[in-house]
Amino acid sequence: MIFNLKFTSKTHKKLQIETYIKNLIETGILQKNEKLPSTREMSLMLNVSRNTIIDVYENLTNEGFTDTIKGKGTFISSKKVISKISKNLNWNNFISAHAIMAEKLDTTKHELRGTYDIIPFDSISPNKSLFDIDEIKRDFLNIISIEGNNILNYGYAKGYKPLIEYLKTYMSHKGINLDNKDILITNGFTEGFNIVLSSITEKGDRILCENPTHNTSLKIMKLHNLNIKGIDMDDDGINISSLKNELEKEVPKAVFLIPTYHNPTGIVMSSEKRLKVIELINSFNVPIIEDGFNEELRYSNSNITSLAALNSNNNNVIYIGSLSKILFPGMRIGWVMADTELINYLESIKRSTNIHTSFLDQAILYEYLRGKNFSKYVKKAKRYYKNKYELTIKYANKYLPYAKIWGEGGLHIFIKVTGINSRELLSECYKKGIAFTPGDIFYTDNQGKDTFRIGFSRVNEAQIRMGFQIMGEIISNLKNKLEYI
Amino acid sequence: MIFNLKFTSKTHKKLQIETYIKNLIETGILQKNEKLPSTREMSLMLNVSRNTIIDVYENLTNEGFTDTIKGKGTFISSKKVISKISKNLNWNNFISAHAIMAEKLDTTKHELRGTYDIIPFDSISPNKSLFDIDEIKRDFLNIISIEGNNILNYGYAKGYKPLIEYLKTYMSHKGINLDNKDILITNGFTEGFNIVLSSITEKGDRILCENPTHNTSLKIMKLHNLNIKGIDMDDDGINISSLKNELEKEVPKAVFLIPTYHNPTGIVMSSEKRLKVIELINSFNVPIIEDGFNEELRYSNSNITSLAALNSNNNNVIYIGSLSKILFPGMRIGWVMADTELINYLESIKRSTNIHTSFLDQAILYEYLRGKNFSKYVKKAKRYYKNKYELTIKYANKYLPYAKIWGEGGLHIFIKVTGINSRELLSECYKKGIAFTPGDIFYTDNQGKDTFRIGFSRVNEAQIRMGFQIMGEIISNLKNKLEYI
Repeated sequence: MIFNLKFTSKTHKKLQIETYIKNLIETGILQKNEKLPSTREMSLMLNVSRNTIIDVYENLTNEGFTDTIKGKGTFISSKKVISKISKNLNWNNFISAHAIMAEKLDTTKHELRGTYDIIPFDSISPNKSLFDIDEIKRDFLNIISIEGNNILNYGYAKGYKPLIEYLKTYMSHKGINLDNKDILITNGFTEGFNIVLSSITEKGDRILCENPTHNTSLKIMKLHNLNIKGIDMDDDGINISSLKNELEKEVPKAVFLIPTYHNPTGIVMSSEKRLKVIELINSFNVPIIEDGFNEELRYSNSNITSLAALNSNNNNVIYIGSLSKILFPGMRIGWVMADTELINYLESIKRSTNIHTSFLDQAILYEYLRGKNFSKYVKKAKRYYKNKYELTIKYANKYLPYAKIWGEGGLHIFIKVTGINSRELLSECYKKGIAFTPGDIFYTDNQGKDTFRIGFSRVNEAQIRMGFQIMGEIISNLKNKLEYI
Repeated sequence: MIFNLKFTSKTHKKLQIETYIKNLIETGILQKNEKLPSTREMSLMLNVSRNTIIDVYENLTNEGFTDTIKGKGTFISSKKVISKISKNLNWNNFISAHAIMAEKLDTTKHELRGTYDIIPFDSISPNKSLFDIDEIKRDFLNIISIEGNNILNYGYAKGYKPLIEYLKTYMSHKGINLDNKDILITNGFTEGFNIVLSSITEKGDRILCENPTHNTSLKIMKLHNLNIKGIDMDDDGINISSLKNELEKEVPKAVFLIPTYHNPTGIVMSSEKRLKVIELINSFNVPIIEDGFNEELRYSNSNITSLAALNSNNNNVIYIGSLSKILFPGMRIGWVMADTELINYLESIKRSTNIHTSFLDQAILYEYLRGKNFSKYVKKAKRYYKNKYELTIKYANKYLPYAKIWGEGGLHIFIKVTGINSRELLSECYKKGIAFTPGDIFYTDNQGKDTFRIGFSRVNEAQIRMGFQIMGEIISNLKNKLEYI
């Protein structure tokens, strides 16, 4: 009998010994009626105090692993050996349809992704080098000195009140009339969209959106089992007559739109179109879910107003905001601004989902936003990404034989190359150290096989130049091959 | 025409002016064809630079709010006045069954709750005075210096790797065999339970649990539209023969159990019963969902082992852990430990739900846990709550004419007073400044009307004594009234 236990840390020695012996019993290495070493022997063997061993033996007996016979010693009991279930569960038999769909639609698992060695055109995460870590430190220490222990205890489902108030002012500065509107803080856009869909849709409900659209949003709509109808886009946003047709065909539960730096195309819906879209959807009394994605990154001075602002005398816009494309996405903070009556329901769903979003993070973000550095940061980020955008366009023009490029800025552009399959292209590019996002995953109807999204937030000029040069060569080769066939 | 705009902050002046004028137009205060003051006049009126006003007027014209006629000035256009939809949406017509249920089951909204003036026997939040805020500061600064900006960017759905590794070791020290098991980090127990149910149940599926059980868990099971069967409890945990009957009647999708300091009763399931429960459920090849709630708070030295540990050679236990009842619940961090195959699905659902749990919080918690203070803190918390428990029992014995008290420690006890309705009692107590939780919300079958839960985590000795004295008097009065009738 070997007690070759190696302690893995200085704490919990007692527990480690107990666990070790239990395992020996459960796996049958120590057999029924076998005698354990005396407490004295064991304490010498393991170099721990005898009292520790006495405690361990007592517990083992209390839990039925051993029997202690006075004057004789401690013996293995059979009571405590749990029979293995006939065979281990085959979890595949237990997995819900929802889980199977979630796994299937999990692009992070199934798509080729950028790694350290790969030029990450697939990423539209903000560039972390822009984050001002010293400012965050100060904000953290400030908030701890203001809020103390409070900030670590349970908070409110709706969110951290000062942050909510800040965001209300922030939204009203964007031209939104806040009367009868309220804000719920969520764990990013993703949770906001999930909660909104949970609150106003049932399985099978019809929803309209742009085609293509944000792939995570598409995934979420699919996981809510919605009947999704994607509507083609013009160069200045969703096609109005198609939208009208679809509204007339069957009134949907909601229309989901990404008006600014649309994902994946990068299109900014024109002011004129925004007005038309609102008039049209209003006339059907349908809720509009607006993804405020990247609104903060508008480079140009002309301040194109959000649908929520343009339509703010009506109560049918649900605006989902997020700063994750510029600030601290790791904290996962977003917000939903909507009619007070609706927010009341969203709040209850939020509470049932995860009680509330981290109060510590909300407080840090609030402290950051109310400081002077936020507007400076946004300016810096705008400059930075504008420069990246221009470089991306410049080298695309130089190296990529594209049929069309969409996108006016933000963190990505969308490219169509006639006659190639973007998955075939990706597979070749990946071998040469380049990742991007094939366009088909953004489409509601399996279109876009000759398109792809190029994110430029995390690449430098050299990577853009080199990446596009290689991509251009690969595209030429693929086209030549096609011509041969 | 009055331009009495008051700037609300030093930034965004341009936007504030623009918004203000837009509102005047949209609300009809500025009428069609009306002329705006010249840029010079306006800049004097508002005391801002003329260039700012020129920008504003340009934007207004670009967006169709005004027409600029060269040499004449800027005039209100009617193009941009969004027509109000016939009437505002009545959101009640749009709310899903799920949202209605979530709102209805939202006890925070509908139950009487402790406030600053009220003795909060309804709370089982940890006492924030125990938190070591200086330690958290150090942990934060450490983690920032180690991780830098990384910690603010997107992370992994499964969680922060060092925290996962820490928790694996932590669980293995609790006697769990980690072979073929994995961990997913969640936003607390609530999210963990939601994701687990999403992954293995469909609408209408049968699930067994203790009766009474944790009211948030009960709410979540209802929101998943499960067919819930509660099983009565003995003084040492769930009744085995009832459990057997229900398993035989129809095999459920899962059994949900809270073996340690069960909520609401405070019962710790005995070692013997744990073994029997596992043997029984294993024999039906059914998953066990174990709520590790309060396991860390076991006062006594005897280390009662979790179901996950006792059954760790099988793969059917899904253990949901949380430190929220002792540490920093405001951060919302919990974890699910289960078979690797199942965690793979849970991870995809987590990603579709909110991408991941805050990496900053996970890193701070990791830094805290790996430090020396965690075990000291747990000892301190155990002592503190043990003392509170003993005081609660002492004064209950002195003042409350109870029929039965359950609970061995943790953060709460459960009380039955024959012949009273606990909601009537609550309503009287609330008038005198006392809140507690009526027992019926914990029951799967509307029982427990003469029971209530007393949380003692946030009350001091004086509050316990005074609170129970008053409650005792009110109970006597209610009983006298009953006898009269």
